[in-house]
Amino acid sequence: MAYTVEQIAQALGATALGATDLEIDSVAEPTDATDRQLALAMKPEYAENLSEGEARAAMLWDGADWQALGLEAAIISPRPRFALAGLSAMMDQGQGWPQGIHPSAVIDDSAELAPDVSVGPMVVIGAGVRIGAGTVIGPQCFIGTDTQIGPGGFLREGVRIGARVCIGARFVAQPGAVIGGDGFSFVTPEVSGVERARQTLGEQGEVQKQSYARIHSLGSVSIGDDVEVGANTCIDRGTVRDTRIGNGSKIDNLVQIGHNVVIGNDTLLCGQVGIGGSAVLGNNVVLAGQTGIADNIFVGDNVITGGSTKALANIPAGRVMLGYPAMKMDSQMEVYKNLRRLKRLFTDVAALKKTVSKIGQSD
Amino acid sequence: MAYTVEQIAQALGATALGATDLEIDSVAEPTDATDRQLALAMKPEYAENLSEGEARAAMLWDGADWQALGLEAAIISPRPRFALAGLSAMMDQGQGWPQGIHPSAVIDDSAELAPDVSVGPMVVIGAGVRIGAGTVIGPQCFIGTDTQIGPGGFLREGVRIGARVCIGARFVAQPGAVIGGDGFSFVTPEVSGVERARQTLGEQGEVQKQSYARIHSLGSVSIGDDVEVGANTCIDRGTVRDTRIGNGSKIDNLVQIGHNVVIGNDTLLCGQVGIGGSAVLGNNVVLAGQTGIADNIFVGDNVITGGSTKALANIPAGRVMLGYPAMKMDSQMEVYKNLRRLKRLFTDVAALKKTVSKIGQSD
Amino acid sequence: MAYTVEQIAQALGATALGATDLEIDSVAEPTDATDRQLALAMKPEYAENLSEGEARAAMLWDGADWQALGLEAAIISPRPRFALAGLSAMMDQGQGWPQGIHPSAVIDDSAELAPDVSVGPMVVIGAGVRIGAGTVIGPQCFIGTDTQIGPGGFLREGVRIGARVCIGARFVAQPGAVIGGDGFSFVTPEVSGVERARQTLGEQGEVQKQSYARIHSLGSVSIGDDVEVGANTCIDRGTVRDTRIGNGSKIDNLVQIGHNVVIGNDTLLCGQVGIGGSAVLGNNVVLAGQTGIADNIFVGDNVITGGSTKALANIPAGRVMLGYPAMKMDSQMEVYKNLRRLKRLFTDVAALKKTVSKIGQSD
Repeated sequence: MAYTVEQIAQALGATALGATDLEIDSVAEPTDATDRQLALAMKPEYAENLSEGEARAAMLWDGADWQALGLEAAIISPRPRFALAGLSAMMDQGQGWPQGIHPSAVIDDSAELAPDVSVGPMVVIGAGVRIGAGTVIGPQCFIGTDTQIGPGGFLREGVRIGARVCIGARFVAQPGAVIGGDGFSFVTPEVSGVERARQTLGEQGEVQKQSYARIHSLGSVSIGDDVEVGANTCIDRGTVRDTRIGNGSKIDNLVQIGHNVVIGNDTLLCGQVGIGGSAVLGNNVVLAGQTGIADNIFVGDNVITGGSTKALANIPAGRVMLGYPAMKMDSQMEVYKNLRRLKRLFTDVAALKKTVSKIGQSD
Repeated sequence: MAYTVEQIAQALGATALGATDLEIDSVAEPTDATDRQLALAMKPEYAENLSEGEARAAMLWDGADWQALGLEAAIISPRPRFALAGLSAMMDQGQGWPQGIHPSAVIDDSAELAPDVSVGPMVVIGAGVRIGAGTVIGPQCFIGTDTQIGPGGFLREGVRIGARVCIGARFVAQPGAVIGGDGFSFVTPEVSGVERARQTLGEQGEVQKQSYARIHSLGSVSIGDDVEVGANTCIDRGTVRDTRIGNGSKIDNLVQIGHNVVIGNDTLLCGQVGIGGSAVLGNNVVLAGQTGIADNIFVGDNVITGGSTKALANIPAGRVMLGYPAMKMDSQMEVYKNLRRLKRLFTDVAALKKTVSKIGQSD
Repeated sequence: MAYTVEQIAQALGATALGATDLEIDSVAEPTDATDRQLALAMKPEYAENLSEGEARAAMLWDGADWQALGLEAAIISPRPRFALAGLSAMMDQGQGWPQGIHPSAVIDDSAELAPDVSVGPMVVIGAGVRIGAGTVIGPQCFIGTDTQIGPGGFLREGVRIGARVCIGARFVAQPGAVIGGDGFSFVTPEVSGVERARQTLGEQGEVQKQSYARIHSLGSVSIGDDVEVGANTCIDRGTVRDTRIGNGSKIDNLVQIGHNVVIGNDTLLCGQVGIGGSAVLGNNVVLAGQTGIADNIFVGDNVITGGSTKALANIPAGRVMLGYPAMKMDSQMEVYKNLRRLKRLFTDVAALKKTVSKIGQSD
């Protein structure tokens, strides 16, 4: 489907300049762009490649001299990255799945599907399930007993949702996501070495051979509106009450969210983040890839972590953290700098000892 | 299904106090409990919230004054967390799946299913498979050629088990678990940079462009009795012999277990743990979330690690470890403390140098 | 299927010694080997166990005295580990799946399957898909709209490939791998705390409650020839252009590859590696298990990392790296050594301060 430069700019609330009736089929990077593609050159360093491609129009940064770049038209946005959200939504070709209920799907008679729900091939939908209007259940998905999914959702292929999960509107799940697996909760008949090591911070006491009894998960998972869950990510259900994810939170691939965890609103968890059981995260938190949050700890609102941060203790609201164990980012950067200077310090101290020893003798 | 307080206490080997004929439908946290729910307040700090809910009965810690808490009945256990294992098993509603063999399942004629095996929709069961009595194969599972699963097992939706895997009794697998993927084993025609870097601890020698040849996995996976495997966890098969998991071991979500790994009995691996190829773990080991164990190393019995511990070398039995690289937890805690004091140390040494230099001159 | 020792040696380009007409059914470790199995004892330390098994023939290292080991025949290879690649390919029993197109598979009429393509039960193949000759699509796989897979591929059970993915020849994918999930890309209306913290390396400025808008992924994934992707590994598609994996690269289980990532040829990513969005990796790179590569950084050709290395900045070609944050391996080893000596250093400096103070006073 083609749009004019003018139509695109209007849809994005951006400014169209030049030959605004040029037709655009799709978007491309400057080097690859054909003459019917809108080149994305939202920073000056990307614009250098415009001449390598054939773009006649581009989305540019505020203040760009589009004519000097050899373009016939331009779209200017004060925050081009934000405009890209709208632009990419316009241009998204989607997954190309047919609409409707595929005949191979196994749907329990008691399930209630609102109008315009699509269900792909090989899907299994259990008893008592309720799915809101317009939601797409992709091929090979599984929806467990009594689970509810709100309207406007989109589940990619092979998403698995266990029993009694409750999910809000406009839910997006990537392939292979698992919601509502059982919590990992086991207990030994007698006090265990781990329990003692936690209390003593390192001593497990006398070692004892013990087997584990399983604590079953009786809770499920509650997920708010506008949540996205990544590919092969796992969200376990709670022991007594539900594990909870707030509105607007986005979770990347291969993330582990343990039982009883509570995550606030508009929180972002990047790839391979792990949240230990019963940890509590606030609103507007951003955890970078491979961040680990120990079980039972608290992470305040607006906390940000750098890549691979490992938090073993509570983090107050607003902190920017880095490292293992997590420290404030600026302190950690200083530690890293000092580590690199450590060799020199050892040399200095050795020299000092010699000098002082000499002075002492000469005294 | 309802139980009296007395019935619950008897089943758990615990003590019932007060109006022991009160009927209980399910359990809840103190704040959320209705008058037909057993509140779980197994530590004094949780009991504070009892007044916010409507519970008439609660499970309490040994020595709790249940009447002072406004309750009509109580269950007292010497180790309430262990009692919770039995209680949660009693109260578990399960996944609500129908019993029997679903007609959409594709089951090879040569597969032998013992009595009372259930097979969900869209399941594929290969040739020569044997499944023990009462085992539940959840929707969309795959069981490969000649694989055996013991009695009393429960496979959640979408579990995938490759060829020739051998699994004991009472096996539990969470959604999307993969058992018997091929090992990750590749070799270059000539000695590679990695081989040289391992020998020299850092020097790969002269760099050479090489492609990899695949070493096929001829072994499979052997799993003992009472093992649990988490959601989207992967256990690779062995190169020549089987990868092995001992009795009673429990594995959380998104765990990676490489080819040829041997894991003992009653060992716990928490979320996102990674075990490199050919590593050997003893019995009663507990590895916290995101722990990494390098390939080819040995972890002794009763070893415990803290969150995100990264072991690059063998760990003797009984050690409690933390950090990257792994050290004894108490040593590591001291290192962390010293790192925070490092800035001060640099200042002190700089000052000392000045003082000593002055003394030297004045000498 | 049985081979003589002579036939095996010829196939591997190795040397057969002794009773080269001995028949071999399969391979085994020395301890487990029966009299019709070839024992693998490719290093002297493994040969010690030959007497515990019943092997009459073994694959040995160059220069081994096979007769002294009590064997009747031997295969000698200058690089036995490389010979194992060929040997394991000969002996691989495979997954035992039937050939052909299973009637339960849902295949769009517009999909083009070359001769000898096998499609397992419960597979879904979308519109416009093209699959090359001899490729095996395992049970319960999903292949999205307009995706192409080259000849000679082998997809284990439950692999999921989204729309418009382009894959070369001889592709191998392990169970549950996800290729072409949507990129994790979100943007706030105003500049966010994360954007500010990146610029200032630690200060997010005034905190502001903001919700995220989704940047849709318009690109897909391009994968070269001879690539292998591990179980439950995720490769996201690109924002504008494709995410790209070069020829001959091998990816282990539970690896995360973000949107727009470019990976060169013959690169190895071990278990649970994470590559942040838009990172670029060169050729012949080897990243050990749990390595993390931050988004938008560059990793040069022939870079090698040790286990759990966390790279927060570019790595020049040829470097061998370790630790968090990543340093050259030899520097990092020295840091680790110094950390262990840190306690002593504090003691030394404290003693020096005392001594110097005394000298100062006595001066």
